[in-house]
Amino acid sequence: MASKVLKFGGTSVGSLERIRASAAIAAAECRRGEAVAVVVSAMAGETDRLLGLANGLGFGLGDEETDVVVSSGEQVSAALMAMALRREGLEARSFLGWQARIRTDGPPGAALISGLDATPIRKAMEQGCVPVMAGFQGASPDDRLRTLGRGGTDLSAVALAAALDAQCDIYTDVDGVFTTDPRIEPNARRIQKISYDEMLELAAQGAKVLQTRSAEFAKARNVSLRVLSSFAEPGQSEGTMIMQAEDIAERRIVSGIAYARDQARIALRGLSQTPEAAAGVFSGLADADIGIDMIVQSPASEPGRANLEFTVDRRDLRDALTRIGESDARDVLSETGLAKVSIVGLGLNRRADVARILYRALAEQKIAVRTVATSEIKISVLIENDAVEHAVRALHAAYGLDAAA
Amino acid sequence: MASKVLKFGGTSVGSLERIRASAAIAAAECRRGEAVAVVVSAMAGETDRLLGLANGLGFGLGDEETDVVVSSGEQVSAALMAMALRREGLEARSFLGWQARIRTDGPPGAALISGLDATPIRKAMEQGCVPVMAGFQGASPDDRLRTLGRGGTDLSAVALAAALDAQCDIYTDVDGVFTTDPRIEPNARRIQKISYDEMLELAAQGAKVLQTRSAEFAKARNVSLRVLSSFAEPGQSEGTMIMQAEDIAERRIVSGIAYARDQARIALRGLSQTPEAAAGVFSGLADADIGIDMIVQSPASEPGRANLEFTVDRRDLRDALTRIGESDARDVLSETGLAKVSIVGLGLNRRADVARILYRALAEQKIAVRTVATSEIKISVLIENDAVEHAVRALHAAYGLDAAA
Repeated sequence: MASKVLKFGGTSVGSLERIRASAAIAAAECRRGEAVAVVVSAMAGETDRLLGLANGLGFGLGDEETDVVVSSGEQVSAALMAMALRREGLEARSFLGWQARIRTDGPPGAALISGLDATPIRKAMEQGCVPVMAGFQGASPDDRLRTLGRGGTDLSAVALAAALDAQCDIYTDVDGVFTTDPRIEPNARRIQKISYDEMLELAAQGAKVLQTRSAEFAKARNVSLRVLSSFAEPGQSEGTMIMQAEDIAERRIVSGIAYARDQARIALRGLSQTPEAAAGVFSGLADADIGIDMIVQSPASEPGRANLEFTVDRRDLRDALTRIGESDARDVLSETGLAKVSIVGLGLNRRADVARILYRALAEQKIAVRTVATSEIKISVLIENDAVEHAVRALHAAYGLDAAA
Repeated sequence: MASKVLKFGGTSVGSLERIRASAAIAAAECRRGEAVAVVVSAMAGETDRLLGLANGLGFGLGDEETDVVVSSGEQVSAALMAMALRREGLEARSFLGWQARIRTDGPPGAALISGLDATPIRKAMEQGCVPVMAGFQGASPDDRLRTLGRGGTDLSAVALAAALDAQCDIYTDVDGVFTTDPRIEPNARRIQKISYDEMLELAAQGAKVLQTRSAEFAKARNVSLRVLSSFAEPGQSEGTMIMQAEDIAERRIVSGIAYARDQARIALRGLSQTPEAAAGVFSGLADADIGIDMIVQSPASEPGRANLEFTVDRRDLRDALTRIGESDARDVLSETGLAKVSIVGLGLNRRADVARILYRALAEQKIAVRTVATSEIKISVLIENDAVEHAVRALHAAYGLDAAA
């Protein structure tokens, strides 16, 4: 019997009405003969409400008790979903993280799944019961509740799918992964199939549809993922399949365009040109868990010295500047009001005209490019915040992604 | 080292401000050298909110998943209380029911504590940590969450105190047990010491300060109970001690007066005068878990037949009438708009003038008595709903309970 894990995100369980609609989708899958397990997020807004209570007492993410508070959100939605499934005529029951034997390592608020013994959930499925697992949570070796960090319910779902050798359908409030944000470019099209690596880059560059860690985990464990909408009638959302690159027949140069506003650029002028100097800069930032991107290094005019620059989220800037305070750079400059636009595609590394199209499209819009950073399947440009929409639309058309094209 | 279990009810943890105030009380106890464990209810209103979610999907108390939903309330307040205690400079951590190894028997929504292995909590206390246990909850033999029924947090606290051989302080929003409801009789006085049995009768007859099952459990396990207010400054509420009758030096005839509005009277006329007939009536009601009180049986005019009457809560009347449908009574009558007023005291059974005072005081107020029922330490009268306040005030004065007396 084919198995499927259905994950319903916060908006898909955001009200009793939405829970009923999502239960109807799961019931339709069951009637098609799938053995179904469900994984749920907290009701939309609930995690923030609960976090607000902890904040009010001076505690935040990273504290053990905050995890106890916050994980109650998924506890409630899992039980409500089990009720709604029973209303659909199915047998169903909730499994909290510890009941599903999800073991975690790592700190509160950002724990990693170290083990998942799917025996109880598999047993329920074999008995014709739909297990509804509370996402985002597990238990530490000493049996305390742990949460997996924001978006961790995707990770719960993918880990369960891997343990059950099942496909994983991620239900959200959009109809799949789009070539870019439809709020900016109405011509954005749904992508039917995309590789794990492209999805990873899109997620890392700002596309919010799937958490990076989940895509990584799915790739490593070869879990077939599908992202689709719970707001369509059952069976009406096709969504986007996320799979191994070699399983995708159609080869596109560019799959999608992501963007992230409110970036800050930090430039260290005249840093010692030794690996230790640069490593020292980044180790301070890594200790503080500050995400960095678009690293560019170039020789400085002073011999034996280099200029090093990179971007961080605007909200991390102050913290980041403190952490690199002990470098031997002659000068540290920072700049805000910037945004990052990234084009992502498996074909990028095999085509010479990609960069030409990029520069020409932006030049035609008179958009100045501060920095360019490339990876195998991604090119990111740093531009002014105000130019984001123009840039996304121009690039979407230039790379032939428009629906009309 | 002396140990104390401090239980904080819903209003005592009803907001972050109240949680902070209750944590300050616990911290003051710690500074006095007590080894303290804390047990908490859900934040006031939270259980009803959560129950409303389950109701919205067609499920109520008594369902396994409702227990999963509702028990999240105490999970949140336990973690928040642990945070607030840490802000007071103490070490503290939350224990959910299953983490505190509270085993339960019985149905969801009304489970009984079948075992409590206090080892983890005792260990925390020995290490100088204040354990904060989520009340109202435990785990079934197959590791599903169970709740103990309304007011079950008192039971959690008393069970923990019994296991730790500790005193149990029940913090609420009133300053102890009063001779009657101060909202009705401003001359009501706080009772300093009261016996378990009197407390039991007062609770059963409508005094809401402590749940009946908790008082029974405390009596059976000889746990010293104190009911006091968390709304006073730390150490400023003396409250009421609840203890064995023989430990109370002062002997009063009447300790307190309780009342319960909205009672209904059911009268079965001409029931077969066999033990089986009456047992049949009550077994149907017991199956439906309907509480009955003030049972009076008298011979009917027809030989071999009896009249049987009793009271139920108004809201149980319709259900009760269905359940007794199969009796062989000639006639079943019911009446609503009634209230029960009860005088409770250890001295009642030794004083002949108690009944005289009762009838005289009510007669002076022209209050008609429908039914009288007595136990060793209680006399209850059934009167019209509208007469409750007059009756309570008249009896409070007649038995010398007024503060001025």
